[in-house]
Amino acid sequence: GFAVIDHHRTLRKGFPEVIFCQGKTIEQIVWIFSKLGEENRNILGTRASMEVFLSVQKLYPAAIYNELARTIVVSQGEDSNKTGNVLVMSAGTTDLPVAEEAAVTAEVMGNHVRKAYDVGVAGLHRLLDKLELIRWAHVIIVVAGMEGALPSVIGGLADQPVIAVPTSTGYGASFNGLSALLGMLNSCASGISVVNIDNGFGAGAMANTITRMIEKVAHEDKFKK
Amino acid sequence: GFAVIDHHRTLRKGFPEVIFCQGKTIEQIVWIFSKLGEENRNILGTRASMEVFLSVQKLYPAAIYNELARTIVVSQGEDSNKTGNVLVMSAGTTDLPVAEEAAVTAEVMGNHVRKAYDVGVAGLHRLLDKLELIRWAHVIIVVAGMEGALPSVIGGLADQPVIAVPTSTGYGASFNGLSALLGMLNSCASGISVVNIDNGFGAGAMANTITRMIEKVAHEDKFKK
Amino acid sequence: GFAVIDHHRTLRKGFPEVIFCQGKTIEQIVWIFSKLGEENRNILGTRASMEVFLSVQKLYPAAIYNELARTIVVSQGEDSNKTGNVLVMSAGTTDLPVAEEAAVTAEVMGNHVRKAYDVGVAGLHRLLDKLELIRWAHVIIVVAGMEGALPSVIGGLADQPVIAVPTSTGYGASFNGLSALLGMLNSCASGISVVNIDNGFGAGAMANTITRMIEKVAHEDKFKK
Amino acid sequence: GFAVIDHHRTLRKGFPEVIFCQGKTIEQIVWIFSKLGEENRNILGTRASMEVFLSVQKLYPAAIYNELARTIVVSQGEDSNKTGNVLVMSAGTTDLPVAEEAAVTAEVMGNHVRKAYDVGVAGLHRLLDKLELIRWAHVIIVVAGMEGALPSVIGGLADQPVIAVPTSTGYGASFNGLSALLGMLNSCASGISVVNIDNGFGAGAMANTITRMIEKVAHEDKFKK
Amino acid sequence: GFAVIDHHRTLRKGFPEVIFCQGKTIEQIVWIFSKLGEENRNILGTRASMEVFLSVQKLYPAAIYNELARTIVVSQGEDSNKTGNVLVMSAGTTDLPVAEEAAVTAEVMGNHVRKAYDVGVAGLHRLLDKLELIRWAHVIIVVAGMEGALPSVIGGLADQPVIAVPTSTGYGASFNGLSALLGMLNSCASGISVVNIDNGFGAGAMANTITRMIEKVAHEDKFKK
Amino acid sequence: GFAVIDHHRTLRKGFPEVIFCQGKTIEQIVWIFSKLGEENRNILGTRASMEVFLSVQKLYPAAIYNELARTIVVSQGEDSNKTGNVLVMSAGTTDLPVAEEAAVTAEVMGNHVRKAYDVGVAGLHRLLDKLELIRWAHVIIVVAGMEGALPSVIGGLADQPVIAVPTSTGYGASFNGLSALLGMLNSCASGISVVNIDNGFGAGAMANTITRMIEKVAHEDKFKK
Amino acid sequence: GFAVIDHHRTLRKGFPEVIFCQGKTIEQIVWIFSKLGEENRNILGTRASMEVFLSVQKLYPAAIYNELARTIVVSQGEDSNKTGNVLVMSAGTTDLPVAEEAAVTAEVMGNHVRKAYDVGVAGLHRLLDKLELIRWAHVIIVVAGMEGALPSVIGGLADQPVIAVPTSTGYGASFNGLSALLGMLNSCASGISVVNIDNGFGAGAMANTITRMIEKVAHEDKFKK
Amino acid sequence: GFAVIDHHRTLRKGFPEVIFCQGKTIEQIVWIFSKLGEENRNILGTRASMEVFLSVQKLYPAAIYNELARTIVVSQGEDSNKTGNVLVMSAGTTDLPVAEEAAVTAEVMGNHVRKAYDVGVAGLHRLLDKLELIRWAHVIIVVAGMEGALPSVIGGLADQPVIAVPTSTGYGASFNGLSALLGMLNSCASGISVVNIDNGFGAGAMANTITRMIEKVAHEDKFKK
Ligand SMILES: Nc1ncnc2c1ncn2[C@@H]1O[C@H](COP(=O)(O)O)[C@@H](O)[C@H]1O
Ligand SMILES: Nc1ncnc2c1ncn2[C@@H]1O[C@H](COP(=O)(O)O)[C@@H](O)[C@H]1O
Ligand SMILES: Nc1ncnc2c1ncn2[C@@H]1O[C@H](COP(=O)(O)O)[C@@H](O)[C@H]1O
Ligand SMILES: Nc1ncnc2c1ncn2[C@@H]1O[C@H](COP(=O)(O)O)[C@@H](O)[C@H]1O
Ligand SMILES: [Mg+2]
Ligand SMILES: [Mg+2]
Ligand SMILES: [Mg+2]
Ligand SMILES: [Mg+2]
Ligand SMILES: [Mg+2]
Ligand SMILES: [Mg+2]
Ligand SMILES: [Mg+2]
Ligand SMILES: [Mg+2]
Repeated sequence: GFAVIDHHRTLRKGFPEVIFCQGKTIEQIVWIFSKLGEENRNILGTRASMEVFLSVQKLYPAAIYNELARTIVVSQGEDSNKTGNVLVMSAGTTDLPVAEEAAVTAEVMGNHVRKAYDVGVAGLHRLLDKLELIRWAHVIIVVAGMEGALPSVIGGLADQPVIAVPTSTGYGASFNGLSALLGMLNSCASGISVVNIDNGFGAGAMANTITRMIEKVAHEDKFKK
Repeated sequence: GFAVIDHHRTLRKGFPEVIFCQGKTIEQIVWIFSKLGEENRNILGTRASMEVFLSVQKLYPAAIYNELARTIVVSQGEDSNKTGNVLVMSAGTTDLPVAEEAAVTAEVMGNHVRKAYDVGVAGLHRLLDKLELIRWAHVIIVVAGMEGALPSVIGGLADQPVIAVPTSTGYGASFNGLSALLGMLNSCASGISVVNIDNGFGAGAMANTITRMIEKVAHEDKFKK
Repeated sequence: GFAVIDHHRTLRKGFPEVIFCQGKTIEQIVWIFSKLGEENRNILGTRASMEVFLSVQKLYPAAIYNELARTIVVSQGEDSNKTGNVLVMSAGTTDLPVAEEAAVTAEVMGNHVRKAYDVGVAGLHRLLDKLELIRWAHVIIVVAGMEGALPSVIGGLADQPVIAVPTSTGYGASFNGLSALLGMLNSCASGISVVNIDNGFGAGAMANTITRMIEKVAHEDKFKK
Repeated sequence: GFAVIDHHRTLRKGFPEVIFCQGKTIEQIVWIFSKLGEENRNILGTRASMEVFLSVQKLYPAAIYNELARTIVVSQGEDSNKTGNVLVMSAGTTDLPVAEEAAVTAEVMGNHVRKAYDVGVAGLHRLLDKLELIRWAHVIIVVAGMEGALPSVIGGLADQPVIAVPTSTGYGASFNGLSALLGMLNSCASGISVVNIDNGFGAGAMANTITRMIEKVAHEDKFKK
Repeated sequence: GFAVIDHHRTLRKGFPEVIFCQGKTIEQIVWIFSKLGEENRNILGTRASMEVFLSVQKLYPAAIYNELARTIVVSQGEDSNKTGNVLVMSAGTTDLPVAEEAAVTAEVMGNHVRKAYDVGVAGLHRLLDKLELIRWAHVIIVVAGMEGALPSVIGGLADQPVIAVPTSTGYGASFNGLSALLGMLNSCASGISVVNIDNGFGAGAMANTITRMIEKVAHEDKFKK
Repeated sequence: GFAVIDHHRTLRKGFPEVIFCQGKTIEQIVWIFSKLGEENRNILGTRASMEVFLSVQKLYPAAIYNELARTIVVSQGEDSNKTGNVLVMSAGTTDLPVAEEAAVTAEVMGNHVRKAYDVGVAGLHRLLDKLELIRWAHVIIVVAGMEGALPSVIGGLADQPVIAVPTSTGYGASFNGLSALLGMLNSCASGISVVNIDNGFGAGAMANTITRMIEKVAHEDKFKK
Repeated sequence: GFAVIDHHRTLRKGFPEVIFCQGKTIEQIVWIFSKLGEENRNILGTRASMEVFLSVQKLYPAAIYNELARTIVVSQGEDSNKTGNVLVMSAGTTDLPVAEEAAVTAEVMGNHVRKAYDVGVAGLHRLLDKLELIRWAHVIIVVAGMEGALPSVIGGLADQPVIAVPTSTGYGASFNGLSALLGMLNSCASGISVVNIDNGFGAGAMANTITRMIEKVAHEDKFKK
Repeated sequence: GFAVIDHHRTLRKGFPEVIFCQGKTIEQIVWIFSKLGEENRNILGTRASMEVFLSVQKLYPAAIYNELARTIVVSQGEDSNKTGNVLVMSAGTTDLPVAEEAAVTAEVMGNHVRKAYDVGVAGLHRLLDKLELIRWAHVIIVVAGMEGALPSVIGGLADQPVIAVPTSTGYGASFNGLSALLGMLNSCASGISVVNIDNGFGAGAMANTITRMIEKVAHEDKFKK
């Protein structure tokens, strides 16, 4: 077979395998969706074209497509009580597809998600309007292209874990996101870590790992012993 | 003046400015140590040579130098109750300086730290002996050079947030850590984020941001409302 | 003329020139196929589009096209006794085109080929199900994109020669396979060597060189003297 | 001869050739200093070691060495009326050598220079204390290493021309200043241009070109016609 | 909302936000144009396709499209008295789109703009015909691809600030403008600073920052006190 | 105007400007062809699409298009006596477009051109068949992609000047010709110099500069004095 | 502990862990040597300085140091019957340290090793003198720096598996071995695979994996069933 | 043996092997010098330290060391009639070591050599003083670091073959000569080819190949037939 479903994934990681659709044939994608559906958990597909969605929709008529984020979500009645507060911020308007992928991922994995888009460092006052939102969050995802400076500024203001996502927004010496990636890795603020260029999914999943751990400790009281 | 101490740092981030000693003159370093000492908090200096340490020790006779990690710690009677469980793992023996920098950072910021060194993927059984330790942790820091594969394997086994630290260990096409950095950014496991090459400090600080948030939520019960 | 057929190739290397179709015009490809056909050996074309195949099929109606691998095979009744055991493994489903190119190459050059696809390191248990297959092999080809960690893990478990093939699967900081390539070159396991990104053909041909040498030594008993 | 003094330089550019000492022998440097001295203008040498300075000092006992900036200045009674206001800012303390090179250059070319060092984006309030200084300036030079985010923030606040200087401060993925360079080139703020990594001299000279043009227009009233 | 208009931009920078159209949907672009129109200032959109223009034109029938520069300008009766003299030079004919973007930007922001195109260093006499134009300018923008040598030659001849713009013109080892970018950053002439590859907009805006400062000083006589 | 014809080019370099068509509009190209035609010399256009050719043909019905090389040649009755012997060699069949561009350039500039294609190092005997041709040449152009090893081998065998042209043939770690370029620059044979990736034109023009100098010296006997 | 000895290594891979000395302290190295000595197998240390050797020699007086290869070998009476024929070739004299590391590794692991050094492609006749040696080999290791062309030529002549080792020999655009590495990965000959830059050890170990498999098949006759 | 002298080199290339001393031990170098001495031709060693020279001098007391170029020349009474005119130009004073290596190489191989140093493009008038020298030359070697613009300007003025040599002079974004290398490869002038960074030897040898061919044709009159 061309694919081996990792059925233990939910046990180990709390969420089933997420389907990375780019580079797979439609037949492969539909087959994997159908196999994962047997687990009766919510299913997430990323980097899906409209064409892929239409084929998946035949199998799951209730599947939802987010055109900007290019995600497919199949809800199977699970996870109604949300556990963590995840704030997704973006520097510009052109970063929205990646920011939305992060937001969809964090949400389908069981988090409250709020958004503050287009608040980049060239107009700092826009950011200062968002201090309330920042205080609300348990984890902050910061999405930025070009020079990727926003996470440093957020990391200087906030005490939450900051997950920085460089985007391939830009041209010339942005080298398809390399500029933002290097900027974020070299941030002079602390409490920041970085995922791959355009990896909204990875940021959402990392945020979820943190909020799940928060919830686990809070519930089991294991933390205080 | 050549330096402006960020005295609000403790308020915003829960820990004072950490002194990055590399590239500063001894006079500059000692002056900053003396200024930070006025806050009566623990002080951390990183990337400090033995020569730097000897000058700082004149000011603070109780300062402690970790030769492998190249850190200076000045304890001023603070932070006796530890709050989070941070596990630091390394793939090889040559990664120890970076792993130790991460461990010292997490510890001085108020965490329980345990270590599992030299457990790289070329001998997987060494890793399987550490499952108990993995279960203990709230956050796992994974330090690796060369191909940087260990975080992917840990990320596949564990449900904690994994902070991956590439090291400049290696030669040739490791390109001073680029190989490990790219490997970690492209990890096919989820729940992983990455800091700069050799940035043990950044990993320790990120881990601390997470455990502080866990503690905050558990105490305030804010999470359940 | 635009091409000089290397008619000594079979003498020197045990297999005729393989036609690299990418970047050649259809006229050039068909002419080379027709010339190679005169040797009465099996012919292999790689990186062939469907359009190229249809033109070659007019010349050799029995030609076979593998759409995933993009290979054309013209069998001319040769090489029925297979000599070596080649196992082709892949980390993910998106690595299949490259894995299939390797498999077709090894097979047409006279080897038994088995496959274990989608067994990447993020779910190690999938790999442990394949130990029987691993023991069967004389040579193992491991195909992986993204962080390219699978060859290190296989190299740690197996004592066969491992030929690692990085793929351009991935995005962002995978830099079209650079990430996997560097990972494999820096593998901390031993007994691994690497071919070009997406070079399934090269891996299959290298594997064949090894199995041919095994056969030669076993037959001639030259090895024991 | 090994060197051809560009004696027209003062006519064309308003300042004689500046001596780049790195990579020249002491004999070559002293010879060039002696030749330039014949023009009776101030002389500037950059990237000079202490050893170079001691040899130049024998020729010009009044020569002044700035150890941090590694510059030699020989004043020959010229240029007492300063014409422009140049503000030099740095993100961190380790950027000082480059910032000082810029300051010395702008000053010796005939400008008022003020400095605001260690005001990086991880503690924005330090920057807001400098708004008065910013208003004073005709041109702002912003020196920063690591992620190089400070010019974007200054460029968002100020309406003066901003000259951004990346420094090689940092380690790992800063790639000796590449990270800061790319960040500055991709700045989302406008009114920013960039010079080479560690090129304090180039920034000072560019600033001087601007203030000289301001003075020229103001004097000749040419601007209003 | 997907965008936060920076309504203070005109106050801080003297010109409203410029709309970077690349990577935005048509709906987003039209919405931002309509919002910016409320300020009653001229509006500039860059990197706009013909399709984008046609949608904007429905909102502002007087909008003007420069097909080479790919800019949209909406004039709202503002800024008739031009203030600075900006000369835009290009090395070759293929650099025209970037040179035109710079010219349109400088012009809409309130400058006199003249042009000297196709005067690259392979035929220096073409350049010497332009000395009169050079003397006229307050700021010179030099646009060049391939080896990017023109700014060094201009910087050697002229005493104005030179803003160098590398273009992605070329092939092979030009690496999409990297060659020209590095050449300009390493210029051995002084008084040169550089913007991003193909960033005509950034060069025009930087030139405007300089001419605005010239005008400000000349008017307020602040410079002479 | 968008273009300034360098009418002195023929005087200085012995051949008029060559029109680099890529990145120019058809109107621009036709205008330049018409201007150059006034000099009554042969005209060469490179990197021309079929569409460009059809427009030029309307102006010059006798224009000749080489589809592989993508060149347009307009002959105006000049240069019948050929002066130098230029041999163009290629490693593979896929290098033909670049090899042909070199051949057309050298020929239109007045040289005898012979060709030896597809004689790469993987089958050395093919090369040894060409020793006669090698002896005939005054200059050898060697075109190769992938590892670019052919110039080293030719440079070891021949005493003529070798001009090496890397091509973007290949995939993966060939990085669009970077691999061949670096190989050629690092050749351990002597008497080799290199032009840009895919720059057949540059190689032909360099070869012509050499044969023109040979002819000049031979005619003027200047060499023997 | 700082190190975890992989005592199963001999079982899995047929040879104990090899000690990579670079980046380890002398104390760490000596401790690992003493632990590995308990297995009563031959021990190999690579990248060892003379200082490291002198400390190891105190523990094992019979330890042998190869100064060129920088290897330490401790023989403990094992493995007298050699099994495979490994030929090590080098392009130049400066490649000897890496070639010797490969030779020592292959030998200590139980192979017959012969050598053909300084036979690079700039003087092909030197290579043709070695055809007898080539026929003798079961596996060929080819070590080359600069353009790295030798493996392609060997791969075209020989039917054995070729393991190519790029070296950091060279300067300028060799980029510390990158040039040779890319050349080898893009070889147009088949039956070649590549290890890391300067990785003589890896090549020797890969060769040994192949000869061990040859021996295994020849002995068990498993191959013919 | 560690080295195989290529005794046919003089026959094939007109000059014996040149000894590249960097990376060889003193014993190896002296042995090669002694072997080459048996041919009774002039011997050239490059990249030789003073220490190497002193050892060679013991063998050949008349050996001459050029400290700037780091070359050793042993003259054995050969080659008194010089054949070609080679002009070596440099952009700056720091390029002298490379320029001198080129000059020594061209001279010892039998050419008249003249020099024009420190004539870079930032002061074009210095170059115009050299037009007489330029007319004298048969071949021009142009050595430049930083932006590497000088070859383009020379290539625009002169009709001789231009051999461009990038140097590692500079800092920051010169990336050890990469900037100059890319600039030269992308030159918009024609009749230019490029050798490796800092490869003065290669440029001298290439120039010699051209002048030898000129002489050969002029003598044999072969050219006119
Ligand atoms: N997919 C492939 N990747 C790399 N090399 C290949 C591939 N297919 C064929 N080749 C090699 O390319 C050679 C032919 O190159 P050419 O002369 O350009 O047709 C063959 O002899 C093979 O060794
Ligand atoms: N062609 C351009 N290149 C670079 N930056 C631009 C360009 N056009 C506009 N900008 C900047 O991009 C900012 C808007 O970014 P965004 O919020 O993504 O729309 C504007 O305020 C301008 O400073
Ligand atoms: N294929 C080519 N590759 C590189 N340079 C070329 C090519 N064809 C023409 N050129 C050069 O490009 C110059 C014209 O540049 P431009 O002014 O942009 O048209 C000509 O004078 C040639 O020297
Ligand atoms: N400075 C140099 N740069 C590049 N190649 C050189 C240099 N000096 C000598 N060579 C070449 O290196 C070859 C010797 O290489 P090796 O066998 O390693 O000694 C000589 O034959 C020359 O072709
Ligand atoms: Mg915006
Ligand atoms: Mg170990
Ligand atoms: Mg899978
Ligand atoms: Mg500071
Ligand atoms: Mg032109
Ligand atoms: Mg071929
Ligand atoms: Mg040699
Ligand atoms: Mg000079």
